[in-house]
Amino acid sequence: MPNMLLEARRELALANRIVANEGIIDAFGHVSMRHPDNPKRYLLSRSRAPELVTPEDFIEYDIESQPLRDPGVGQYSERVIHGEIYKARPEANSVCHHHCPAFMPLLATGTDYMPIFHLGAVGGIRPPFWDQRDEFGDTNMLVVKPEEGASLARALGKHWMVLMMRHGVTVAGTSVRDCVFRSVFSARNAEYQVRALTIGSNIATLSPGETNLAGQISAKTTGLTRSWEYWSMRVANKAGGHAAIPKNAKPARIKTKPVRAKARSKRAAKRRRR
Amino acid sequence: MPNMLLEARRELALANRIVANEGIIDAFGHVSMRHPDNPKRYLLSRSRAPELVTPEDFIEYDIESQPLRDPGVGQYSERVIHGEIYKARPEANSVCHHHCPAFMPLLATGTDYMPIFHLGAVGGIRPPFWDQRDEFGDTNMLVVKPEEGASLARALGKHWMVLMMRHGVTVAGTSVRDCVFRSVFSARNAEYQVRALTIGSNIATLSPGETNLAGQISAKTTGLTRSWEYWSMRVANKAGGHAAIPKNAKPARIKTKPVRAKARSKRAAKRRRR
Amino acid sequence: MPNMLLEARRELALANRIVANEGIIDAFGHVSMRHPDNPKRYLLSRSRAPELVTPEDFIEYDIESQPLRDPGVGQYSERVIHGEIYKARPEANSVCHHHCPAFMPLLATGTDYMPIFHLGAVGGIRPPFWDQRDEFGDTNMLVVKPEEGASLARALGKHWMVLMMRHGVTVAGTSVRDCVFRSVFSARNAEYQVRALTIGSNIATLSPGETNLAGQISAKTTGLTRSWEYWSMRVANKAGGHAAIPKNAKPARIKTKPVRAKARSKRAAKRRRR
Amino acid sequence: MPNMLLEARRELALANRIVANEGIIDAFGHVSMRHPDNPKRYLLSRSRAPELVTPEDFIEYDIESQPLRDPGVGQYSERVIHGEIYKARPEANSVCHHHCPAFMPLLATGTDYMPIFHLGAVGGIRPPFWDQRDEFGDTNMLVVKPEEGASLARALGKHWMVLMMRHGVTVAGTSVRDCVFRSVFSARNAEYQVRALTIGSNIATLSPGETNLAGQISAKTTGLTRSWEYWSMRVANKAGGHAAIPKNAKPARIKTKPVRAKARSKRAAKRRRR
Repeated sequence: MPNMLLEARRELALANRIVANEGIIDAFGHVSMRHPDNPKRYLLSRSRAPELVTPEDFIEYDIESQPLRDPGVGQYSERVIHGEIYKARPEANSVCHHHCPAFMPLLATGTDYMPIFHLGAVGGIRPPFWDQRDEFGDTNMLVVKPEEGASLARALGKHWMVLMMRHGVTVAGTSVRDCVFRSVFSARNAEYQVRALTIGSNIATLSPGETNLAGQISAKTTGLTRSWEYWSMRVANKAGGHAAIPKNAKPARIKTKPVRAKARSKRAAKRRRR
Repeated sequence: MPNMLLEARRELALANRIVANEGIIDAFGHVSMRHPDNPKRYLLSRSRAPELVTPEDFIEYDIESQPLRDPGVGQYSERVIHGEIYKARPEANSVCHHHCPAFMPLLATGTDYMPIFHLGAVGGIRPPFWDQRDEFGDTNMLVVKPEEGASLARALGKHWMVLMMRHGVTVAGTSVRDCVFRSVFSARNAEYQVRALTIGSNIATLSPGETNLAGQISAKTTGLTRSWEYWSMRVANKAGGHAAIPKNAKPARIKTKPVRAKARSKRAAKRRRR
Repeated sequence: MPNMLLEARRELALANRIVANEGIIDAFGHVSMRHPDNPKRYLLSRSRAPELVTPEDFIEYDIESQPLRDPGVGQYSERVIHGEIYKARPEANSVCHHHCPAFMPLLATGTDYMPIFHLGAVGGIRPPFWDQRDEFGDTNMLVVKPEEGASLARALGKHWMVLMMRHGVTVAGTSVRDCVFRSVFSARNAEYQVRALTIGSNIATLSPGETNLAGQISAKTTGLTRSWEYWSMRVANKAGGHAAIPKNAKPARIKTKPVRAKARSKRAAKRRRR
Repeated sequence: MPNMLLEARRELALANRIVANEGIIDAFGHVSMRHPDNPKRYLLSRSRAPELVTPEDFIEYDIESQPLRDPGVGQYSERVIHGEIYKARPEANSVCHHHCPAFMPLLATGTDYMPIFHLGAVGGIRPPFWDQRDEFGDTNMLVVKPEEGASLARALGKHWMVLMMRHGVTVAGTSVRDCVFRSVFSARNAEYQVRALTIGSNIATLSPGETNLAGQISAKTTGLTRSWEYWSMRVANKAGGHAAIPKNAKPARIKTKPVRAKARSKRAAKRRRR
């Protein structure tokens, strides 16, 4: 059991690094998984860039997105995205929230996602939009309150992807690998779709029948396994090796105390008051 | 003879890595070659990402795309693309199937490929489109059945490239290097053509005469050799070195058993039934 | 005190490397900071590409952009950009001037910057344009004279970013990290905005209220710290290691004497006169 | 003197690697320099990808583009581009011919190059187009005959850059560094111009006065030196190190004998005849 949990943490750390390495996520965004032993809990990293996440960085949250114990480190402010989806969708076992550049033109123009090649079918048929402003007015756009997360989960409904206006995307999957596969290939499809739209407005999309049939690709282990091996090798071989996941590493603490221009002199303070 | 076959396998493994490294192929897609000793056979990797393919990964297929012996490993589902083209086109000795991003806007809008610089002539004059839906209705878009492969080969006809709507591209060549050269430079041309179309609809293409003359570049060894040396060095020097092809390596098996959220508890199972 | 100054120089060198590594700056552009001990001074590198800058490369300037002592090395010609902003804006403690590709389409078309996702709010509401030609007629476009820098600072006004027509962008921040954060995420936003504009002219921007709320993200240390750790690791792990900042390194002088076609022969000189 | 020539060869090899590393050139294209001791000669690499060129690879050509001695290795077919420009333009001491992606949309649509930021001024005011078809009808688009090279040189006229329809670009400079600087920054400008054109047709270009003033940047050593140091470090630090120029290396010969599907069997030959 502890070994299985360790294995799960390692897989989840790798998932975080893969989505970062494939350009889905940068300093922000995160991938979580439902706890393998308790469907009312989930694992999500402490607050750090996904490309740096190690198996030790995960915090155990209950379904209300409260940490089981004081983590003593910074937490992602948007964890309710994960908790509320796990609450609303029992068959979802992994969630990825990201701001991938490929989606931004769709989010900024309210253009529907359209699967334009078979692998893009993982995004589903007409995934819904959600606009935080509709229900909550002007916010800082972060999904922080439980009711904001719940609203997002309602918008997701039975889909596997929800497009968040002026913000990003949230993807769910039946497993970590399914979630990563959906996240990567929906982003590739979005990129191709946007480029296609720059040369013509009449886009040939998969039919609903094709989307349903092709969308099952991510449920078959052959494609999943082939992709996972490929993405894992890309992470492992990344120059500098920082992408490798150490077996028993303590979270690497990096000194991050910023240097500010020192205590403003009185002269400067005076000038500011003018 | 066995040495020549080994050399062929090494060249084909390098070809797979080159097209991956040059951005034509990612986790999916593949390059095959007709068997150097038997035109009714061909070599194609077991199911794995092309960038990871080693000389030991190739499976020998007969012209009906059946493995000569039980390979004991996963196989590409779309191998009939290769077999049916080798059947229909005796002068084709190598086939590359890919979903290169550069082509996606053409495939999604049904825009003709147009050679806009001399190296783009390798794609030929107005390469044909093929739409699996026309003959086979709604599918998962994979070319898996022999009749699907045969249909694609018919669409290819006497061309060296066929554009597969809502899917990807298949390229043939007289040799592995010719096929790689055509795959890379047709993709470069597609990328340039799409960018050109974003700023003007009146595209200056090569004339048919220019296309025919410039299209012979890939048949001359000077350009082929120069490119092959360049692409090989790029593969060899890739950070991390995983791109190097080991001389006598066994296929590296990577543990790919996915971690799923464990056997759903009864509570969760009940919730799902609601 | 000397330690704090050394720490400041190291942070500033890292800031230069980060903006280079993140694609905001290439051979040109620079990041400065107000002197931590004296608000009437600032630190700016000698003339070299930001990606190569070391803590030893910084020259101390007074508020009139004169070096405190003869630096004996080449200086950036555009340092008045920094000095005049420090003079006009006491709360600005760091300035970044760049020609990031992402902004060029906005600068070349006079298109307003619009925050299209929460992190883009760091660019503020409708950051102003400045055109050197308006006040100074035809120039070589470099901001070299004090009055040119002062004019730019006036255009900046109370904003944190000013768009320089046919030239580039200047960003200010309350600290080095704030300035880097604004520079990177405003560039990301500009890139997404431009891509969005290629598929639709009706762009969904943050409301003024959302911009104000989301714009405070860079003032919170959690997002700043997470990004800084991420960007620092990317610099540290860069292949080849030239990005690492040596502790006590002397500025590495590279021989840069160009080789020219030698003293023109008399024949050639004659030909030129014809 | 021999040392100076060796230095020149090393600088020219580095120039080839820089333009490759900066994305101006791939397997094709080349940079030459006028011979430092004899204005009626020039140095150009044997036929190989510029990124792999070493100081030993250069062949000495006379002004008619004939090698001074049998080089015993493959030669670039387009060397008359260089020879004819050196003949026509005594003040040109270096020439770069390339097919940089950034220019392709301009070449395919016949859109004028426009300097949209100060560094783009190195491309000059309205650099001319040249279409091989005008004078020579259908060709394979390669500039191989002396009269083709002379025609191109006439089109270049007093400019420093000529745009070759459906082919590429040729840039000249007063020195190798000037030529590289012009090649890189004109390509950057072309890329930005094309992106700007995708969001608006009303492009703010430098005025003729600004272009003339800003165009002198490449004649000043400060900008040249800063860029050269930057680009050299990028080459030197490239992962894998193949970009480093060995001091006394013999040209590395790579086995490039292609493997073809072997002597076609009689059955296959028969099928083809049908």
